[in-house]
Amino acid sequence: MGSLDLDPAESIDFSNPLNPEEFRKQAHQMVDFIADYYTKIESFPVLPQVQPGYLRTRLPHSPPHRPEPLQEIFNDITTHIIPGMTHWLSPNFFAFFPATASTAAFLGEMLCTCFNSVGFNWLASPAATELEMVVMDWLASMLNLPNTFMFSGTGGGVIQNTTSESILVTLIAARDKAMQLLGPDCVKRLVVYGSDQTHSTFTKASKLAGIHPPNIRSIPTTDDSGFALSPALFRKFAEADVAAGLVPLYLCATVGTTSTTAVDPVDLLADVASDYNIWIHVDAAYGGSACICPEFRHYLNGIERVDSLSLSPHKWLLSYLDCCCLWVKRPHLLVSALSTNPEYLRNRLSDSNSVVDYKDWQIGTGRRFKSLRLWLVLRSYGTANLQSHIRSDVQMAKMFEGFVNSDPRFEIVAPRRFALVCFRIKPNSLVEPSYTESLNRALLEWVNSRGNAYMSHTVVGGMYMLRFAVGATLTEDRHVVAAWKLIKEGADACIA
Amino acid sequence: MGSLDLDPAESIDFSNPLNPEEFRKQAHQMVDFIADYYTKIESFPVLPQVQPGYLRTRLPHSPPHRPEPLQEIFNDITTHIIPGMTHWLSPNFFAFFPATASTAAFLGEMLCTCFNSVGFNWLASPAATELEMVVMDWLASMLNLPNTFMFSGTGGGVIQNTTSESILVTLIAARDKAMQLLGPDCVKRLVVYGSDQTHSTFTKASKLAGIHPPNIRSIPTTDDSGFALSPALFRKFAEADVAAGLVPLYLCATVGTTSTTAVDPVDLLADVASDYNIWIHVDAAYGGSACICPEFRHYLNGIERVDSLSLSPHKWLLSYLDCCCLWVKRPHLLVSALSTNPEYLRNRLSDSNSVVDYKDWQIGTGRRFKSLRLWLVLRSYGTANLQSHIRSDVQMAKMFEGFVNSDPRFEIVAPRRFALVCFRIKPNSLVEPSYTESLNRALLEWVNSRGNAYMSHTVVGGMYMLRFAVGATLTEDRHVVAAWKLIKEGADACIA
Repeated sequence: MGSLDLDPAESIDFSNPLNPEEFRKQAHQMVDFIADYYTKIESFPVLPQVQPGYLRTRLPHSPPHRPEPLQEIFNDITTHIIPGMTHWLSPNFFAFFPATASTAAFLGEMLCTCFNSVGFNWLASPAATELEMVVMDWLASMLNLPNTFMFSGTGGGVIQNTTSESILVTLIAARDKAMQLLGPDCVKRLVVYGSDQTHSTFTKASKLAGIHPPNIRSIPTTDDSGFALSPALFRKFAEADVAAGLVPLYLCATVGTTSTTAVDPVDLLADVASDYNIWIHVDAAYGGSACICPEFRHYLNGIERVDSLSLSPHKWLLSYLDCCCLWVKRPHLLVSALSTNPEYLRNRLSDSNSVVDYKDWQIGTGRRFKSLRLWLVLRSYGTANLQSHIRSDVQMAKMFEGFVNSDPRFEIVAPRRFALVCFRIKPNSLVEPSYTESLNRALLEWVNSRGNAYMSHTVVGGMYMLRFAVGATLTEDRHVVAAWKLIKEGADACIA
Repeated sequence: MGSLDLDPAESIDFSNPLNPEEFRKQAHQMVDFIADYYTKIESFPVLPQVQPGYLRTRLPHSPPHRPEPLQEIFNDITTHIIPGMTHWLSPNFFAFFPATASTAAFLGEMLCTCFNSVGFNWLASPAATELEMVVMDWLASMLNLPNTFMFSGTGGGVIQNTTSESILVTLIAARDKAMQLLGPDCVKRLVVYGSDQTHSTFTKASKLAGIHPPNIRSIPTTDDSGFALSPALFRKFAEADVAAGLVPLYLCATVGTTSTTAVDPVDLLADVASDYNIWIHVDAAYGGSACICPEFRHYLNGIERVDSLSLSPHKWLLSYLDCCCLWVKRPHLLVSALSTNPEYLRNRLSDSNSVVDYKDWQIGTGRRFKSLRLWLVLRSYGTANLQSHIRSDVQMAKMFEGFVNSDPRFEIVAPRRFALVCFRIKPNSLVEPSYTESLNRALLEWVNSRGNAYMSHTVVGGMYMLRFAVGATLTEDRHVVAAWKLIKEGADACIA
């Protein structure tokens, strides 16, 4: 801040809001607060017990006129915020997919915040752009991707915030390419394809991009294929669309669906897509991370034939939110759909196309130094330990699967491929199917209300099922064992 | 991690990547590293001296198999990253708009990262959703917004990452409302309006949303209005579009344009928009923050008549990236355009519409605990000091403006409204206009290549001009004085 005739009473401690010594002191206090939180995290109920609107009644209606001391803020976090948190990093969190974390990623995020660089183009932050290019190539090599997805080859990668954005920007690239070939009026004839297991964000992205809702295909899956998308059915849909004068545009295939971690057969789907010139995007948000282990890599078979691939290290590579890696084979298609060139951002290097300007690979203009987190994770742990981490989670899930199989009241209801187990209390021939569903709903409610574990549910092929996702960073064998004990108690109570 | 028979040589220090004591130790080290960076920041060249591709040649081609020690990573940051950074937080950064920061926001970001909560709906993180609702109402009250934009009234707010997303989601809401009224085929007749000074992301968002590029109007502005959008001209464009059978949809007005901080007259534009039922979005990314001071609030006159407003505290309210606050008058229009309801995210509270599920207010599904940063800023400094901070920056800009006016070789070329000064070396009647431009280009190059200050440029109304944006958090009077001295030396050198 510059000099200013301030009323001294109004300007306490504010001559420099980024005073390095004040920063040092307070940030050290925050480190201890957070380390203490991680130490105690197991003692908090995973799901909070608060009611909607609880916080508004506890906080003032307007911000303070004068500064409040940090200690008071810490007190409020302890008293008002933590009791209203769903503790995603609790070792007893088994819902959805875990959002994983690590010290290395935390340090990387601190550094990213610290620099506060806004790398919309190369010149605005050369190190930010270049490290992202290097890290995206590193992760590509860990996944054994072909160099058609790498900057060292003919493609390239970019860190988006979420899968939603990865789908949206690649869909826009595909759409604009089609419009260039077929004219702007073709939009209403463009058809996009997913399965009934594709994440809901695919439909949302398609609507955002202006795809006519009746042209968003949700191809049914069945138990027979483990809820994977059938290439034969995909072909039938595409054929019918062409016959109806429509234009097949884009397929979103999934490696590890949200409900049950089903894996769509990328290679066989590519056979169909290449016949119809359809852009294939592979959403490997969750399952992709496992493919850094050779024994899981086959789930990406055929990946060399697709147009784009996204994977979220915040789900399973310890990187904290948000971090979604997107690779594309033809960066120029992204850039031609997303580039802007206002005078106030122009510079010699960008004008000569000799650098990567990441603003042209994403929705927004500004962007943070996103690659630091991943860089620190990859270096601090090394590929060997990251593989061990994946394998350890899978092993715990196998253990849980064994528990379920050992109890005749339960059954596994979808193939376990990674670290998610889908199961339920078995139906009984003496009762209605709807009773089985109520029983399982009651069990979920019973378990989650205890605060000692948090699971979620889904409905697939008409069947209500429970989802037990192993992989919260702090989860150890003993937490899985305790959760299973709780589930059995719940079953006792609900069945009785 | 669960137990696993690992090769001990492969699993060093990796039994728990979030071990609280290891976390504590390493995070303290990072705090000191960052505090030292802030202490030394003034000594780094603002703009780096590296060439494209510099980093790839210095880093390995693939990630390490085994862990690397933190000290080695620190060394690499010092040796390879910092020399390649454009130091946005340097007190000598005067380019673009500043990206402001503060200790309070840093602590808030640490806490956000720490929790790693994924607040896609209320239940997934009640505290995260509710604090965001409170903080958005707080900031609305600081801006004296009507309660039609507040949760305590009939509207509400949400934190997006960037202005681009704020424009995109509101445009989609407007588009879908029009499609509901007029049918899906109306899309090609929808027209959107901005001025030739509107940020380029508006055009990009319009294309993303499927607006036909010929229907994206860029209404010319002139020096006479200080490069603000003329309501009379806006009316003419809308009239002509209606006469041509098109449907006026959406206006993006700006309070503080990127090139010169021009302010579009919101109230008068609302007269036109209401006649044609046009959605008005106000992009106050930069200028909006100043409106927490009563003496600047008039720039938002008429705001009660618009549909949505966005403002980026990362630009001028000390909050670090990314933080863009969006308020809407009719949240149900956002929700109906953006909601998804997959089974695996369903819960009783969401089903009964008794809670806010922020996934339906944004593009993505997952989201971080974004409000913590702003909450800590508002509480740690209080409104009084935040107002002082704005005023101090404006006072420094006025001082610089005075310097420019005091030197007959220079002129101010656009009205200074906030903390940006647009100026140039004056044209000389003896030389071609193109010579004046070359001279100013040379001056910019001369100043920026010194490493002691970084300014940017723009072209408005055909005129090339230099932009001197005051407001980097660490900037004091002496930095502005030194920069002006440098600019004068540059002028001496270039004119000679």
